[in-house]
Amino acid sequence: MSTHPEGHTDHISTQFNVELEDVKNNMLEMGGVVEKQITDAMHCLIKLDSGLANDVITQENVIDSMETSIDAECSLILARRQPAASDLRLVLAIIKTIRDLERMGDESAKIASMSIKLSEGEGFTHGLNEFGHLGTKVVKMVSSALNSFARYDSEEALKVVEDDLAVDSEYRTAMRSMVTYMMEDPRLISKVLNLLWALRALERIGDHAKNIAEHVIYVVEGMDVRHQGS
Amino acid sequence: MSTHPEGHTDHISTQFNVELEDVKNNMLEMGGVVEKQITDAMHCLIKLDSGLANDVITQENVIDSMETSIDAECSLILARRQPAASDLRLVLAIIKTIRDLERMGDESAKIASMSIKLSEGEGFTHGLNEFGHLGTKVVKMVSSALNSFARYDSEEALKVVEDDLAVDSEYRTAMRSMVTYMMEDPRLISKVLNLLWALRALERIGDHAKNIAEHVIYVVEGMDVRHQGS
Repeated sequence: MSTHPEGHTDHISTQFNVELEDVKNNMLEMGGVVEKQITDAMHCLIKLDSGLANDVITQENVIDSMETSIDAECSLILARRQPAASDLRLVLAIIKTIRDLERMGDESAKIASMSIKLSEGEGFTHGLNEFGHLGTKVVKMVSSALNSFARYDSEEALKVVEDDLAVDSEYRTAMRSMVTYMMEDPRLISKVLNLLWALRALERIGDHAKNIAEHVIYVVEGMDVRHQGS
Repeated sequence: MSTHPEGHTDHISTQFNVELEDVKNNMLEMGGVVEKQITDAMHCLIKLDSGLANDVITQENVIDSMETSIDAECSLILARRQPAASDLRLVLAIIKTIRDLERMGDESAKIASMSIKLSEGEGFTHGLNEFGHLGTKVVKMVSSALNSFARYDSEEALKVVEDDLAVDSEYRTAMRSMVTYMMEDPRLISKVLNLLWALRALERIGDHAKNIAEHVIYVVEGMDVRHQGS
């Protein structure tokens, strides 16, 4: 079900509508940059591409300044327009979402750093399958979370929250494989640890996608679903 | 320097002042609960006390509902009182701070879970020194961050931001010790990994304390110091 929260179409000020749409679009644009950042981070680890990894690490600054600028835009809207009801919920959800997006950017940069360490010395191919599987699922979660925000689609958002359970379970399976690789050949411990941190970063990106989906549900339903059943 | 941001004492509505003080006090109370949670998590790991660990895990729900309730209180203030300038900054900083506090609660629960795994089977005493040292520093950071918020003390807050560098460096040293323990005795890999996750959780609690300190600086100075020099 794709719903538009009541109230967003019924303002005294059309200019206010424009500002709200504008800040939401800026957030979605930031989301697009972060999505690409995550996909690039995955590719640089799977292909051990240090050049791309360095690009990902540099790109983190761009994401940071997008967060700072959208956060300031939201503060300005709150101060000038004093929104209420669903408009206020939208602005607060945007403030929280850009923080989650910024963290996803951090985690992507961590994956990129780990790929640089993995590419040093001897080639290392253990666990790249596990990483690829988990990464594909996480990227899909991020994309669905952002789509659900764009379309105020609480059903799609709810699916993202559910998908996080499958990601967590796949992450635990991957962790067990990592332990096995280390035990089989202790000389690989340092390398496997790099991959383990990269897997962890993917799992956290999934958590942030779940957070964003929860912000969407908060906007659409006007209720707080966080911490329910946890 | 301990300053009170301008404007907080000069309201048309005294009731509004009371509400702002009230929500700030609730946040500091939540901070106190989280502080105890972190200290308890440290103790249960160092003493391998599964009873205390279960308390820490149960307590997480209390922290979660504190976050939900303070977050709702902040939304209500924004909707009803439409604060501007330093009052708005204060409310936004509280919204962000309770999210960091809630994450600290999550990380404490992770430490407690790891202490339960460490206490199973044979006794395990590797790396508890490293854990204790790092933990003491992180607890001090959390306490200073909350004090700096209580007193609007931007100098103390800045010290917390600087302390995070020392914590990160100590964390990396501890990580290298963990790798050495695993290489020396691969049968210990699973146990050492549990400790490694607990150390990681401490390091993240330090990051959240740094975030809180940055929120304080944002309130006091009215500027955004996040992402500077990072």
